[in-house]
Amino acid sequence: MSSDRLIYVPLGGAGEVGMNAYVFGYGPKGRERLILVDLGVTFPDMDSTPGVDLILPDIGWLADRADRLEAIFITHAHEDHVGALGHLWPRLKAPVYARNFTARIARNKMVEQGQEGAQVKTVGKLPETIEAGPFRVQFFPVSHSLPEASGLVIDTPAGRVVHTGDFKVDKTPGVGEPFDPEMLGAIGADGVKVLVCDSTNVHQPDPGRSELSLAPALSELVANTRGMVVATTFASNVARLRTLANAGVENGRSVCVMGRAMLRMIDTAQEAGLLTDFPPTINPEEAKSVPRENLMLLVTGSQGERRAASAQLSRGTYMGMNMKEGDLFLFSSMTIPGNERGVIHIANALSEMGVDVVDNASRKYHVSGHPNRPDLEEMHRLMGAPVMIPMHGDHRMLREHARLAITSGVRSAVVTNGTMVDLTGAAPQVVDEVPTGRLYLDGNRLVGAMDGVIRDRIRMALGGHVLVTLIVDEAGSPLGEAWAETMGLAENGRGGRSVIDTLEDEIADFLERADRKTLGDDDKLNDALRRVARQVCMEELGKRPEITVVVSRLMDN
Amino acid sequence: MSSDRLIYVPLGGAGEVGMNAYVFGYGPKGRERLILVDLGVTFPDMDSTPGVDLILPDIGWLADRADRLEAIFITHAHEDHVGALGHLWPRLKAPVYARNFTARIARNKMVEQGQEGAQVKTVGKLPETIEAGPFRVQFFPVSHSLPEASGLVIDTPAGRVVHTGDFKVDKTPGVGEPFDPEMLGAIGADGVKVLVCDSTNVHQPDPGRSELSLAPALSELVANTRGMVVATTFASNVARLRTLANAGVENGRSVCVMGRAMLRMIDTAQEAGLLTDFPPTINPEEAKSVPRENLMLLVTGSQGERRAASAQLSRGTYMGMNMKEGDLFLFSSMTIPGNERGVIHIANALSEMGVDVVDNASRKYHVSGHPNRPDLEEMHRLMGAPVMIPMHGDHRMLREHARLAITSGVRSAVVTNGTMVDLTGAAPQVVDEVPTGRLYLDGNRLVGAMDGVIRDRIRMALGGHVLVTLIVDEAGSPLGEAWAETMGLAENGRGGRSVIDTLEDEIADFLERADRKTLGDDDKLNDALRRVARQVCMEELGKRPEITVVVSRLMDN
Repeated sequence: MSSDRLIYVPLGGAGEVGMNAYVFGYGPKGRERLILVDLGVTFPDMDSTPGVDLILPDIGWLADRADRLEAIFITHAHEDHVGALGHLWPRLKAPVYARNFTARIARNKMVEQGQEGAQVKTVGKLPETIEAGPFRVQFFPVSHSLPEASGLVIDTPAGRVVHTGDFKVDKTPGVGEPFDPEMLGAIGADGVKVLVCDSTNVHQPDPGRSELSLAPALSELVANTRGMVVATTFASNVARLRTLANAGVENGRSVCVMGRAMLRMIDTAQEAGLLTDFPPTINPEEAKSVPRENLMLLVTGSQGERRAASAQLSRGTYMGMNMKEGDLFLFSSMTIPGNERGVIHIANALSEMGVDVVDNASRKYHVSGHPNRPDLEEMHRLMGAPVMIPMHGDHRMLREHARLAITSGVRSAVVTNGTMVDLTGAAPQVVDEVPTGRLYLDGNRLVGAMDGVIRDRIRMALGGHVLVTLIVDEAGSPLGEAWAETMGLAENGRGGRSVIDTLEDEIADFLERADRKTLGDDDKLNDALRRVARQVCMEELGKRPEITVVVSRLMDN
Repeated sequence: MSSDRLIYVPLGGAGEVGMNAYVFGYGPKGRERLILVDLGVTFPDMDSTPGVDLILPDIGWLADRADRLEAIFITHAHEDHVGALGHLWPRLKAPVYARNFTARIARNKMVEQGQEGAQVKTVGKLPETIEAGPFRVQFFPVSHSLPEASGLVIDTPAGRVVHTGDFKVDKTPGVGEPFDPEMLGAIGADGVKVLVCDSTNVHQPDPGRSELSLAPALSELVANTRGMVVATTFASNVARLRTLANAGVENGRSVCVMGRAMLRMIDTAQEAGLLTDFPPTINPEEAKSVPRENLMLLVTGSQGERRAASAQLSRGTYMGMNMKEGDLFLFSSMTIPGNERGVIHIANALSEMGVDVVDNASRKYHVSGHPNRPDLEEMHRLMGAPVMIPMHGDHRMLREHARLAITSGVRSAVVTNGTMVDLTGAAPQVVDEVPTGRLYLDGNRLVGAMDGVIRDRIRMALGGHVLVTLIVDEAGSPLGEAWAETMGLAENGRGGRSVIDTLEDEIADFLERADRKTLGDDDKLNDALRRVARQVCMEELGKRPEITVVVSRLMDN
């Protein structure tokens, strides 16, 4: 009897939406050969990660075992699946495999971080097979909200695992391969031991709708607009851009694409040969001379990003274009939770210009890229796996997805980041917990989520900052008066008097009373000054600022 | 011919959802006698107002004319209508009128801020009439999401204005007066010149649903739960609390209300005689000895507030209670845009405990307190006013509401905060713009939104903070070395070396090269040190921190 085992341990993406990173292993316990599926990022927010540029999974556990890592597979080119590749690859140094479009994006990610693009190998869809230690891996096409999304067939000596990647059930997706029950059925027919499956939309009760279903409503919307039409969606949603552009062209409008991310995605899709029928477009310079009733702009910024084209248009001019009464702005997108304020802000700024703002509240102008509940049931059925592990979702989604599987007689377990399960037997067994967490890309540094750096920033954001400096002379007496400065605090306190004056006075009072022992001990003096400052701020302002005390002690030479 | 005019100028609430404050005036130009309708707050967020406690309308314009202010009317007890009363009343000092329940809450707001509760007069619904200079004002009952919400009939020599307050069309609201078309029709029959109307839900195409319609689904949900049921909603939504409590009692559960805000609202409603049929409840001490399958908790925290009961339960124990596998947590509420992350965070933490979390995604467990599009059409029709001014909504809502009125032949104008319109004639005329804005309650201080205080905090949150101190001796030479400290920044820079060491070294280099003119000039030296610090942070960390430089210059005695 073999002592080899098949293990699965998510390092990101399981118990959250974002920063996907899933490890599979096969071999003797503790010496399994490993593969990694996806290496994505998640996005920071002001509430918990102010000033942070990107959030990456802490792959320290895997980096410590990099010698056992056979390969990295990227299922598709969304940031939450590929965004961390350039940053973290140097700690893993394994070959990266992806299909054509994804590989092009992945190479950019590598090169941007000073890595070799050639580490990313382009592979074809099944039956092409990558041998990676004990694993034989094939990419199978799925429909999603960007070109060439894939699931993985992962054959191991312990049986077949299917990792769906992100997918939707769409038989007419516009760009990319349609949902193909026949192909999926064939994968299932060979016997799937474990299905690892997207959980994002498990709470949506209706079947997902097709990209094609949007065309009539979009065309009608464009037809009914007097002035310019501006539409935004995710930059990578090339199929939607095509649907939108077609709606423009059908109504006699010239189409201009604005925003670097969007242009790059379209270019990449065209270079990969995946987008041969995108209608002709004009450039922003040409757009300036087209009457607005004959113009349609496709712009970045569906999530309200401050620097994207939509935000710039809402503040005034972007690349010579501006919006006005009679124009239409369309959010052909959903808003990711947490981005609502930014999106509403832009919608209102545009409304103030007289622009009609239309979003997907009517559900006519956007379809999701993830499988709804009936779609999940179809995938489960096609795979016929006795075990289903939910992934890609927050805890509530994973839990509901597991329950859905269990009600149809499939075994399931909620496996969150850091939980290692043994998939060798008939039921998944939890065998270990490994350390996971988050790394913050902050400027050009990677900072641990627990390092306290961001905590200090949040505290300054909530409470402001106070600085107290004092010089102590060679004899141990204060030299002159203490100096106080504040940042992010009201100028005047309760009585209307300057807080800085009150701070300096209270410190002077304290210094007058302080004994030589306190004045002579840096720690004691520091603590005491801090206490005075804290008390003044609480009394005068009702605030608890962060406080920095600098005592400079002159030395006898 | 009279030169008197009827004016309207919103100081808050028009072009935003929150901090409602609407001024009406009548009299000769520039000498109009004024009334104020509502004086509410809006809530801060980390993105734009970190650390701020409350946001209040800047009523400086009105305060400068307080001698012309006859009265303040509060339509209902929601924070966005009454929350600023205690803070701003001292600058207005006019009598406050409200109906029973609202007046009780308003008095609390006054007393909490050290004002006299007796300034708030309790008045009855129409036909009771308050004379306020040239205005004769009556409160008429409307249904909304808390007890005793009201609209106002404002009779002026120039004609009748109806201000709806917040309302919904609900003929079976559970608590409070049902929507009464007969009463409203009678108000309209006397001739309404201008309708000023709630716009919040103008983008919702379906008619609003009644509180009563929730009862069967809620009862079924409770019946199907094995363990404890915990439900949250807005603390002031007393009707919902009653609907929820009834669902518990029907299923043989004891009901326990937890969270101060909720208990206070129920008490106030009972004291005001508005809630005689709330089912019996038990206290948290009693709840501990009730088997969980026989228990239902009603808790605060529907918006994910960190200190409310729901958040505390999601972190562990609250007042001796905790949640576990088999329990149900229900969000019988909608999530206000911007609060999604907090709510999702709680839902996931509860899911991790094995709790089933149910929200209103199915639209079965919550109804809105505002009028949807068909409800607005009904209100317009009942009032029959030739002019409709949309209020209570962000710009996009006001604009859509104005358009809705115009399509049925009613004149309308989008009047945002600070715009003064003359309503005397057949059509509203913009006659002035008055200064408006926001005040931040920060600790115990009121800070202007434009004061820069919050901007500095946001900058520290994004970039961290660097402090550089230097002592210059009597001869104008640096005494010892410069001292640097950082807060909210990574410890080590690019090369892995301490950023503070690099800062101090670079400053030492600079000081060595600096000429006496720079060293002798405080401004020059300060700027130069700041420049060095900025450059080091950009190179080493890729960050732009806020920088404080303190140069202490020793003086000859």
